[in-house]
Amino acid sequence: MRYTGEKTIQSVCTLADMKTAAGSNNIVRFHGAVHKIRDMGDVAFVIVRIIDGTVQCVWDKSHPALDLKNICEEACVRFTGTAQPEERAPHGFEISLQSVEAIAKPAAPMPVIINKGKIKATIETLLNYRPATLRASEMRAKFRIQDGIVRGFRDFLHMQGFIEIHTPKLVAASAEGGANVFKMEYFGRKAFLAQSPQVYKQTMVGVFERVYEVGPVFRAEKHSTSRHLNEYTSLDFEMGYIDSFYDMMEMETGFLKYTFELLKREYAAEIEQLKIDVPVLDKIPCVTFKEAKEMVAAEYNRRIKDPNDLEPEEEQLIGRYFKEKHNSDFVFVTHYPSKKRPFYAMDDPDDNKVTLSFDLLFRGVEITTGGQRVHDYHAQMEKMIAKGLDPEDFTTYLMLHKYGIPPHGGLGIGLERLCMRLFNDDNIRHATLFPRDLSRLEP
Amino acid sequence: MRYTGEKTIQSVCTLADMKTAAGSNNIVRFHGAVHKIRDMGDVAFVIVRIIDGTVQCVWDKSHPALDLKNICEEACVRFTGTAQPEERAPHGFEISLQSVEAIAKPAAPMPVIINKGKIKATIETLLNYRPATLRASEMRAKFRIQDGIVRGFRDFLHMQGFIEIHTPKLVAASAEGGANVFKMEYFGRKAFLAQSPQVYKQTMVGVFERVYEVGPVFRAEKHSTSRHLNEYTSLDFEMGYIDSFYDMMEMETGFLKYTFELLKREYAAEIEQLKIDVPVLDKIPCVTFKEAKEMVAAEYNRRIKDPNDLEPEEEQLIGRYFKEKHNSDFVFVTHYPSKKRPFYAMDDPDDNKVTLSFDLLFRGVEITTGGQRVHDYHAQMEKMIAKGLDPEDFTTYLMLHKYGIPPHGGLGIGLERLCMRLFNDDNIRHATLFPRDLSRLEP
Repeated sequence: MRYTGEKTIQSVCTLADMKTAAGSNNIVRFHGAVHKIRDMGDVAFVIVRIIDGTVQCVWDKSHPALDLKNICEEACVRFTGTAQPEERAPHGFEISLQSVEAIAKPAAPMPVIINKGKIKATIETLLNYRPATLRASEMRAKFRIQDGIVRGFRDFLHMQGFIEIHTPKLVAASAEGGANVFKMEYFGRKAFLAQSPQVYKQTMVGVFERVYEVGPVFRAEKHSTSRHLNEYTSLDFEMGYIDSFYDMMEMETGFLKYTFELLKREYAAEIEQLKIDVPVLDKIPCVTFKEAKEMVAAEYNRRIKDPNDLEPEEEQLIGRYFKEKHNSDFVFVTHYPSKKRPFYAMDDPDDNKVTLSFDLLFRGVEITTGGQRVHDYHAQMEKMIAKGLDPEDFTTYLMLHKYGIPPHGGLGIGLERLCMRLFNDDNIRHATLFPRDLSRLEP
Repeated sequence: MRYTGEKTIQSVCTLADMKTAAGSNNIVRFHGAVHKIRDMGDVAFVIVRIIDGTVQCVWDKSHPALDLKNICEEACVRFTGTAQPEERAPHGFEISLQSVEAIAKPAAPMPVIINKGKIKATIETLLNYRPATLRASEMRAKFRIQDGIVRGFRDFLHMQGFIEIHTPKLVAASAEGGANVFKMEYFGRKAFLAQSPQVYKQTMVGVFERVYEVGPVFRAEKHSTSRHLNEYTSLDFEMGYIDSFYDMMEMETGFLKYTFELLKREYAAEIEQLKIDVPVLDKIPCVTFKEAKEMVAAEYNRRIKDPNDLEPEEEQLIGRYFKEKHNSDFVFVTHYPSKKRPFYAMDDPDDNKVTLSFDLLFRGVEITTGGQRVHDYHAQMEKMIAKGLDPEDFTTYLMLHKYGIPPHGGLGIGLERLCMRLFNDDNIRHATLFPRDLSRLEP
């Protein structure tokens, strides 16, 4: 009888393995896709996409066992060659090819040129041909970094005692309210797609004290902007026994510090390649909503239109102000008006027109919304009534308060927003593998 | 101006911290929910739920600063006390309380008794009152272990060079086909909820070679069983440049070995508490679908009804057979009939009536489906046509083949199924925080 588990799992030859091999001119066996062929006559350079980057290979036409006709760009190939130091090559080494075996070939040429520097294509083309365009080096670098960011989020929170949870996306009621919720039929009744894990993460504070979730959230926004998606990945956490809503801001600051260090340590090549300016994060300034509004109105000669909300342009200006005056890429804006925050936001006991809440702006774009929640059962019912809601409609939600819950709060970080600002992209879709918007449901 | 990042993030007092303190009779400050009060007259025992377990505290009524009336079960409290060794206490220590400060109180008594051993309640009650019942020690232990399993999945795959991806759950077409797909309106057109990340993870093999995703999947199954959910958490991976479909089985075996070791190392208390029999995993036997069917028919005197599918009872018997004859909790069943596998499954070149695919049974329940996929563009179109599908409907999907993709395959593990079998639960809902089924959409 056949068994699994008896042999070692096959490992993949990485850039680091090749670099080590080049130190002593060793032979390497590896596989990858042919990214580019540069035919120079007697020799050819073959750039191969391997698992964690691209590698320069040299193809000497005098070698009898090699024939350039056996491969083409985007062919998947097994190679053998000698790794050797080469200062002019991207990673300080190159592979002198000895044998190639094409194992899969494309059926058509690439619809977009991805192997000549930065892709020149409209965003529509980039997105329509995602299976092809994501293979470009810059795209691979971006989404490797995105992987690192999520890893940083999890590892940091795990160290802080948080437990990861998986909560349903099909829900019976909408906690956030508003029009931007997707509806659907669920076995003869109405269901919604969760706009956030709000109810569930609050509930789980009563169970584990500190919880987090990484998962999709759905917003049926009927407008199309460069920074909105109808489905995005939310990095959520919620924590109990807080002293104030600053505890969540400290936790987020800790996550960002930890993660930027992780990126600098483990993704140096990608950062270099994309010329990413990883923020030096020491401390993050905090400003109240009201102060921030007045500050940019005075500094940039701007009239305040809506006293209860920040316009995108105001967020940009607040970001600019704190970059110019405090050399900070981040700024926490606190104490948002109660009018514009949901029923679960806790009002400031010193001024119930504002909430103990915050947004985090990164280079002028909001990437986080968070705050302290109402934890007292009666206070929550009163706030619902004051907001024109009927507590009867929230019986399930109110269970978490009814059976006792500590003072708590949390936040949600838009993963793609964070990436978009980090990558300096002008459109969030560039920082999203397969974006969903008003007109896009595929690929 | 106020800044975050200037002070250390507040840490939480854990069981380990207390145990250390007990070594030298030190004072500890901690917070938690009052799980149980046992009033003995002159002294009372207070069991407190802290972040990673429960701790026994002693309340001496002669102490002037303490008054039992200030707290109640499920009150959230800040405590000070002396940690001291106590052999009879669950973790070998107890806390002699010095001060208590109730910071939040419940508005009603618990609807279900959660602090007297195993909860005695119907599954309906357990699920209806999830915000209360999840606070029981056994529930907390289960979902801490679930967190460990997902961490094991990610950490193991990261070490193997896999990149984590986040792919859309709102999709334009259904890759799996069939009737069990949820439909919805998406800005005037029809959309579906993804039954799996199949299309996207295959596409991403062309980008990163090895990818994984942890996320929700949706199945509109119209039947209610003890092992089906309409929304569950799927642990998916996909890998390229495989030699055969056994490569995925080896990878899954590696993940299971790694994760069970992790559980034994870091979740010993929870394993002990739940009396979980963590499988000793060395190697996993593999049997073909046909052999397995015949084996159990002969061994257990059972007539084969459907030659193309396994009935749940057959899966149970296969599990039993391999436990009895090979002392294995796991068995891979391979080479499922082509008729019953989707269009992307690769047929066995030696017998095109079967596919290069597998299920993994864990104690008689299928927890994984996987296999090698068709990677050649023309072969995939031919197989679609043979299956009665029109390749024109799959233009987007076929891009991944068109532009070249290596031989590849992958699998999906149902997280709750794996947990259900590990916990020896008779219903998958017990291993799900907030299950979704035909009649359940909340909490």
